[in-house]
Amino acid sequence: MQFRGRIDERVLQAAEASFAAYRAAPAETRARLLEEIAEAMLAKRDEIVDVADQETKLGLPRLEGELGRTVNQLRLFAGVVRDGSWVDARIDTRDAARTPPKPDVRRMLVPLGPVVVFAASNFPLAFSTAGGDTASALAAGCPVVLVVHPASPGTGAAVGVIVESAVERCGLPKGLFSCVLTNGDHELNLDLVKHPLTRAVAFTGSLRGGRALFDAAASRPDPIPVYAEMGSTNPVFVLPGALAERGAALGATLADSATQGVGQFCTKPGLVFAVDGAGFEAFTAALAARVGEKAPAPMLYDALAARFREGVAGLAATTGVVKLSAAPGDEDGRAGRPAAFQVSLDDFLRTPALHEEVFGPATLVVRASSVDDLSRAADALEGQLTASVHATTAELPSAAPLVAKLERKVGRLLFGGVPTGVEVGAAMNHGGPYPATTDARTTSVGTAAIMRFVRPLAWQDAPQAALPVELRDGNQRGIWRLVDGKLTRDALA
Amino acid sequence: MQFRGRIDERVLQAAEASFAAYRAAPAETRARLLEEIAEAMLAKRDEIVDVADQETKLGLPRLEGELGRTVNQLRLFAGVVRDGSWVDARIDTRDAARTPPKPDVRRMLVPLGPVVVFAASNFPLAFSTAGGDTASALAAGCPVVLVVHPASPGTGAAVGVIVESAVERCGLPKGLFSCVLTNGDHELNLDLVKHPLTRAVAFTGSLRGGRALFDAAASRPDPIPVYAEMGSTNPVFVLPGALAERGAALGATLADSATQGVGQFCTKPGLVFAVDGAGFEAFTAALAARVGEKAPAPMLYDALAARFREGVAGLAATTGVVKLSAAPGDEDGRAGRPAAFQVSLDDFLRTPALHEEVFGPATLVVRASSVDDLSRAADALEGQLTASVHATTAELPSAAPLVAKLERKVGRLLFGGVPTGVEVGAAMNHGGPYPATTDARTTSVGTAAIMRFVRPLAWQDAPQAALPVELRDGNQRGIWRLVDGKLTRDALA
Repeated sequence: MQFRGRIDERVLQAAEASFAAYRAAPAETRARLLEEIAEAMLAKRDEIVDVADQETKLGLPRLEGELGRTVNQLRLFAGVVRDGSWVDARIDTRDAARTPPKPDVRRMLVPLGPVVVFAASNFPLAFSTAGGDTASALAAGCPVVLVVHPASPGTGAAVGVIVESAVERCGLPKGLFSCVLTNGDHELNLDLVKHPLTRAVAFTGSLRGGRALFDAAASRPDPIPVYAEMGSTNPVFVLPGALAERGAALGATLADSATQGVGQFCTKPGLVFAVDGAGFEAFTAALAARVGEKAPAPMLYDALAARFREGVAGLAATTGVVKLSAAPGDEDGRAGRPAAFQVSLDDFLRTPALHEEVFGPATLVVRASSVDDLSRAADALEGQLTASVHATTAELPSAAPLVAKLERKVGRLLFGGVPTGVEVGAAMNHGGPYPATTDARTTSVGTAAIMRFVRPLAWQDAPQAALPVELRDGNQRGIWRLVDGKLTRDALA
Repeated sequence: MQFRGRIDERVLQAAEASFAAYRAAPAETRARLLEEIAEAMLAKRDEIVDVADQETKLGLPRLEGELGRTVNQLRLFAGVVRDGSWVDARIDTRDAARTPPKPDVRRMLVPLGPVVVFAASNFPLAFSTAGGDTASALAAGCPVVLVVHPASPGTGAAVGVIVESAVERCGLPKGLFSCVLTNGDHELNLDLVKHPLTRAVAFTGSLRGGRALFDAAASRPDPIPVYAEMGSTNPVFVLPGALAERGAALGATLADSATQGVGQFCTKPGLVFAVDGAGFEAFTAALAARVGEKAPAPMLYDALAARFREGVAGLAATTGVVKLSAAPGDEDGRAGRPAAFQVSLDDFLRTPALHEEVFGPATLVVRASSVDDLSRAADALEGQLTASVHATTAELPSAAPLVAKLERKVGRLLFGGVPTGVEVGAAMNHGGPYPATTDARTTSVGTAAIMRFVRPLAWQDAPQAALPVELRDGNQRGIWRLVDGKLTRDALA
C-alpha cells in the first residue's frame, strides 16, 4: 500500500505487465484465485470484522453478514468463470460454396485490461477491497488497482494483504492486484482515472464524486468506461388498497428499511409516495412511531454524519415539510439520528431539493391524492436504482400506467418488498438510469457485473492453434456457444 | 423530412410518444416491421439504386449488392426478434425457507428509448436510412430519428418514405421513425445529441465528427451512450514465409482490397507491414502494378475527394515516403486516384502523421526487417477495427507475440484474408478500441449490434401479470432463459 503526493507509475505499469499472463491463464486459475481469496477471508474472519467495526462502527453482526456475502460473491464468480459460458461465444462457420465465399468468424468476450476500483465507504467488505467490483474484474480477466477508502484503511489493508498473498499462491504476477491509498485526494483519484494504462473504472459513492470520475474519463484522449453507482432515493409507491389492508404494518416495515444500517444503503427508501385515505394515518403513525424508537447510531465517518444532519435540517426548514418523528438523543460527532418527514405532493413537485438523496436514516412521506397523482410523481423523478410498488392484487391493474413509467426510470422494480437487501444472483440488476449510475447498461451486483470489464473480439479464418480454447472446434470446456445461429454445447462436426 | 435553422422539437417528442406503444407491441410486430421495410425496398429496388448512384457514383453493381445486404440485415434482425432469446432473460426463483427469504428476481434487456442515427456517406443504404443502425435500434424496440447524410439526401428520402409507410402499415405510431436533414450543420447535429429525449446515438464517419458527438453526449446533464464508428487503418502484417510463398499474389489481392469502392470502406487496408527479404520485391511490385492499373473514379462528394488528395499529397511529401505507383489520369473534382506508397519502419515509427487514416484508395507499405519489427509496429498503433496476419502455418508460432499484441488493439483479427467485406452474422464484430470507435464494448455490424440500444431491468416478486411475456413462468415464446443458473427453454415448474 502506498500513500504519496502523486500516483506511483509502477502500480499501473505492474498491472499492465500482469495482464498478458493473467488473460492467457486457464479459467481454472482465475476461479481458484477467487476461491483462495474467499477461503483466506474466512480464515481471518474475526480479525477483519474487528478492524472493520473499529473503523465503520457498523457492528459485528452486520459485518459478519457482509463478510459472508463477500465470500459468497467471490465463490459465485469462481463458478461463473469455471462454467465458462459467460464469454458469449459465437461461431459462424465457413461456406466456401457461396459467392463470395463466407468466411469462418468466431467471437467471444475478452477482458479490457487494468481496472481501477474505488472502495465504497458503506460496504467496507462487499464493495471494497475484495468486493463485487474486484471479484467481477478479476473474474473477467482484468488486473485491479484498488483505491482504499480513507474511512476504512485498516480494513482495506487487512483484506489487501489477503488478496496479494492469494495472487502469489496462485503463481500469478504480483501486479495483478495492488492497493493504493489516496486518502480521498481528488487529484490523485483523477490521475488514476486519466492514466493511459487504465482501461475501466468502478466506483460506488456520491453523485459529485462519480460524475467527476466520469468527466475525467470522458475527456481522456481515449475515453474509457466508468461504472459509477451514485445512489438513489428508491421511491416507494403505496396504493390505496394496500394502505387500507396493511397500512400500519407497511409503515413499520418501511421505517425499518429506511433506518437499517443507519440508513447507509444505496437502496434506502428515501421517498415514500402514499395516497391519502383509509389507512394513511395508520401508515404514517406506525412509520413515525417506529422511527422514533430507533436509537441514534454512529455513521461511517464524521463528515458523512455532518452532511446527514445538514440534509435533515434542510428538510425540516423546507416549506410544507412536517417532521413526523425523530429518534431521541445526541446529534454530535458521528451520530446519525433517524427521522421521518411528510410533505404534500404539490409541495414536493415544486421543490427540486426534496427530490435529492439524503444519505442516512431519514425518509420523506409524500402525501398524494390518487393513483394518478402517483404517476405524476413518477414523471417528476430522475433515474433510480429501484422503485417499489405496494398494491393489492385487485388494484394492480390501476397501477399499470405508474408501473410503465417506473420501468423507464429504474434498474429494479419491486412488488411488495423493501429495496434494501440486494440479492446477489444471475438475475439481479443493481444499476439504473442517470443519476443512479453513469451507465445504465450494466449492473454492479450479481453475476452480470462481469460484463462491465469485457469487449467482443472476432477471429476470422483463424487456425485452431490461434484461437482461444473457448472457440476451438472441440469445445473442450463444454460451454454454450451460438453455432450458426443455434445454441449448443456440442463440438463442431 | 425537414431542414430548418433549428431542430423541430416535435420530431423527438413524436419519437418519445411512440415509444410506449412500440415497446409494448409483441415481438412479432417488430419483426414484421423490419420485414415490411425489407420487402418494400426490394419492390423499389431500381428506383433506390438509381438515385443512390446519381448521388454517390458508387455504380449499379455495388449499390445493388448493398441493397441486397441491407435487405438481408433487416431480415436477420427480424429473425433475432422473432427468436427472442437475445433478451438474455434470467430468473432466480424464490426460496421462502432461506433466512432471510430469497426473493423471486427476473431480469431481461429492455429498450433505451429514442435513438438518433446518423447516416453514413460511404454506405448510402446499408449504414444509412434503413441500414444496420436503424435495423438494430428498431429490433431492440427503440424509436429512430434518422439524420440523412447531406451527400445522399435523395437516397435518404427514397428509403425514408419506405420506412415511414411500413410503420403506418404495421399500425405503429408515426413518430417511431423520422428523417431529419441537417445538411451537415454541426450545431444542429449536436442539438440532436443533446436533446433531453435522446437516449443513444449511432454514427459512422470521421474521428473528428464522432468525437464531437461523443463529447456533447458526455457533457449532457445526463450522459448517454454514443456508438461512433470512426475508421481505422486496418493494418496488415505479412510474414516472411507468406511473402516468399505468395508475395506477388498477396500484393495484387491487397491492392484490390485497398482500392475497392474507391477505397471508401472503414476496413480498407491502409497500412501494410511486410518483412524485407524473399518475395518482398515481388510483393511490392505486384501491389504497385495493380494499383497503377486502376482507373480514377468519383468519390462520394467533392470535399471528400479534396481531403483524399490532401492526404495523398501529405504522404508524398513526407520524409522517407516513396511513391510506388499511382493510377493515371485526372485529379479534378470528385476523382479519387488510387496510389501506393512505401516507407521504412523507422521512418514510420518517427512520423505520427503516417499512422493516421487517409480515407480513399491509397495504401502505405511499411518495410520491416523482422517478425520482431512487426511487433514493434503493432505496439505503436492505436485502436483499430481490424488487423490481418498473413503467415504460413509453419511460421505462425513465431507470430504469437505479434498476435497477442494485436488482440488488444483490434475488434477483428483476420488470418490470411482482406479486411474489406464485413460478413453480417451473429459472430461478426465491427468495432474496436478508440479511436476506431467510441465504445469498444459493442459492434455495429451483425446481430450483436442490437445490444447497443438496451439495458437490463429486474423485476422482484412481481405478479405474473406485471411481467413481460419473456419472464413469465410459462415461457410462452419458448426462449432460452437462465433459470436458477441453468440455461433452458422449459417453462417454470
